[in-house]
Amino acid sequence: MLPDIHANESVFTWAAPPLKFGVGAIDEIGAEVAALGAASCLVITDAGVRETGFPDRVRENLLAAGVKSEVYDGVGVEPTDQSIAEAVAFAKQRDWDCYVAVGGGSAMDTAKAVNLLTTHPGELLDFVTPPIGAGTAPWLPVKPLIAVPTTAGTGSESTTICVIDFLGLHLKAGVSHPRLRPALAVVDPRVTVSLPPQITAASGMDVLSHALESYTSVRFDAKPAPEDPMRRPAFCGANPISDVWCEMALSLVGKHLRRAVLNGRDLEARTQMALASTYAGTGFGNAGTHLPHANAYPVAGAVKNYRAEGYPEMPMVPHGQAVSATAAAVFRWTYPADPARHLRAAQLLSGRTFTSTDGADALPEVLTELMTDIGMPAGLRSFGYTESDVDTLVDGTLKQTRQLAVVPRPLDRAAACHIFHQSL
Amino acid sequence: MLPDIHANESVFTWAAPPLKFGVGAIDEIGAEVAALGAASCLVITDAGVRETGFPDRVRENLLAAGVKSEVYDGVGVEPTDQSIAEAVAFAKQRDWDCYVAVGGGSAMDTAKAVNLLTTHPGELLDFVTPPIGAGTAPWLPVKPLIAVPTTAGTGSESTTICVIDFLGLHLKAGVSHPRLRPALAVVDPRVTVSLPPQITAASGMDVLSHALESYTSVRFDAKPAPEDPMRRPAFCGANPISDVWCEMALSLVGKHLRRAVLNGRDLEARTQMALASTYAGTGFGNAGTHLPHANAYPVAGAVKNYRAEGYPEMPMVPHGQAVSATAAAVFRWTYPADPARHLRAAQLLSGRTFTSTDGADALPEVLTELMTDIGMPAGLRSFGYTESDVDTLVDGTLKQTRQLAVVPRPLDRAAACHIFHQSL
Repeated sequence: MLPDIHANESVFTWAAPPLKFGVGAIDEIGAEVAALGAASCLVITDAGVRETGFPDRVRENLLAAGVKSEVYDGVGVEPTDQSIAEAVAFAKQRDWDCYVAVGGGSAMDTAKAVNLLTTHPGELLDFVTPPIGAGTAPWLPVKPLIAVPTTAGTGSESTTICVIDFLGLHLKAGVSHPRLRPALAVVDPRVTVSLPPQITAASGMDVLSHALESYTSVRFDAKPAPEDPMRRPAFCGANPISDVWCEMALSLVGKHLRRAVLNGRDLEARTQMALASTYAGTGFGNAGTHLPHANAYPVAGAVKNYRAEGYPEMPMVPHGQAVSATAAAVFRWTYPADPARHLRAAQLLSGRTFTSTDGADALPEVLTELMTDIGMPAGLRSFGYTESDVDTLVDGTLKQTRQLAVVPRPLDRAAACHIFHQSL
Repeated sequence: MLPDIHANESVFTWAAPPLKFGVGAIDEIGAEVAALGAASCLVITDAGVRETGFPDRVRENLLAAGVKSEVYDGVGVEPTDQSIAEAVAFAKQRDWDCYVAVGGGSAMDTAKAVNLLTTHPGELLDFVTPPIGAGTAPWLPVKPLIAVPTTAGTGSESTTICVIDFLGLHLKAGVSHPRLRPALAVVDPRVTVSLPPQITAASGMDVLSHALESYTSVRFDAKPAPEDPMRRPAFCGANPISDVWCEMALSLVGKHLRRAVLNGRDLEARTQMALASTYAGTGFGNAGTHLPHANAYPVAGAVKNYRAEGYPEMPMVPHGQAVSATAAAVFRWTYPADPARHLRAAQLLSGRTFTSTDGADALPEVLTELMTDIGMPAGLRSFGYTESDVDTLVDGTLKQTRQLAVVPRPLDRAAACHIFHQSL
């Protein structure tokens, strides 16, 4: 008898929440919540977003629809286990029928965590992927969560993921489960018009990185089949559906990100960037991010004194800056895994044609041009890192098993070190 | 004070069920149903599909996962109010936790109707759009429905719609509501391999027609805003998300439908057609079909003696044949509404380039070539219709308000008559 051959994966999965997109969409939230039969609703946001007036506009819209509501504006700029504990304590003062998150990834991820921890016993680390956490899957129903992104960035409105900075562990890690996916994404491009240029730039680079990483992640059918099909990894790898959306998003970011950064009131550029971000969530959220995101967690988690312009006065590396910091070096290193795809991505982003003569440098050069044009920090030294930090950063990267599973080349410690050194 | 101007629509909506796609996906249904916490499950199919063995394979898979199940194989080839009543009577013998539909549009639409009528009081006509029915919206929870398409055609696995032939009224009409959308779509291209050429051809033309109609439907923001945003029409019109999916589907159908018809065992062509059909459901199901589908209802409903090769021995015009029958005339007539889009569609389907010099004939000619190559009947006379039937057919078309709302040109009786005469 022949030995059992472990066959390759032949199935991919895909899911996204219902979407309401367009100018004015935010004014339909009251009607949506009322239609769910909810009588009370907590609006979760941060203090900066609250100043735009949109969270209170949503609250009034809810009240007009007969839904009791309050606004919690204590979301941390990059959510930590501590800021989430405070939000959970606030939420537990009442039994909410529904949550509405208004903000960037921070507000939406906090709302997902609040939803989880007000409906389940236990603490955040119980739900984080091993080896960092216990990897418990949420097993109880959660409340409907309506996500209203105010940046064109994370795509968190569509995904099952929330990312938390664990202060005691000095690293960022994610919780991911289908139950955490919002019940509805409401994307209103008008809401992003007042976003400052630096936040527009960083969140736009996050969209770009989602698209590039999904597009270049290992193909779903180049991995071994899972032993238990119900325990497929959260990221299934590049597939024919995610590919379409990645290509669309790359092309939109290439055409519109500069315009949105230079003139925030350019509603067409804002609308196209909101679409690109939505494509990230609805189109390729399931394919997966890989090394730039795996690197971003220790880069943001181990920050010392860096303060980002346009962001609150505290030491932090905004997520979009953290993912971009190693992107050029990553994509130079992943190039051999699929040269055609890397060249095509460079073409979609720049509108120029590249051939294999341009080789591994084409995509990193296009990325660097764009980052320069929109004023993104160049290199990890900008954040205060030096050669002596590389070992710590690599340790953090090598713990991100969810992302590492779809890196398109085998990654060892030496390769990770090389990429961080190149990115200094 | 200026009078109130009724503003244009500025919001579009989009939704699709989670998808599991690939060779072997069908063997994960037991695990999926068990994960829902369901203890019993009715598999709904038709006698022809049952002969392929797939419904019983699903049943065994359910039993192995500890889910009690039975197979109902009495689905009508084109479901009627009568065949649905029989299926409902069968289903009511037990209290099922879950339904699995295995088959083409008929099985999936029947399962949606069974799910509706076993969870709600009333009869089908209560839920049909006015003026044909009462337009009642389902208001109670329904059971999870897992849809397993065995044709690459209707896209019913992803949509909220079920279409029924009302025998007494001599017409087809639809029930549509978000509660009818399947909880999961399971698309396994291997299941379509044994489909006979005629059914492959007709269901492939249905995919093509979904894509072409959505792509050329009136743009969502060219319509007036709805007075009540919670009562937006089921079809919201062409939008940036549906456009992406339509273009992909047109290109896939153009490249792979002939191959799938000529050699059913060409698994690559089958996989690409299954993907095209999935794109139809997940991507542009919300944009909307227009005139070819509105015409198809009376064309199929008023059939006299036509028997379709490859289908059961009874008078019927298969849905894919009915939608294709007037397509060339429709797209010649809709051309002035957006010439560029019609030329682009012709290019995606054929791989050839067209300019405005080719004009209104380009797309109809490409359609006619494809239909000839795959052996589709040409003209309504093939089904036994003559000039004297046009008035009856037009009457049926003009009742299809859901589709007529997104026709890209104002349609009057004269235009509808002209299109039917051209299509004889």
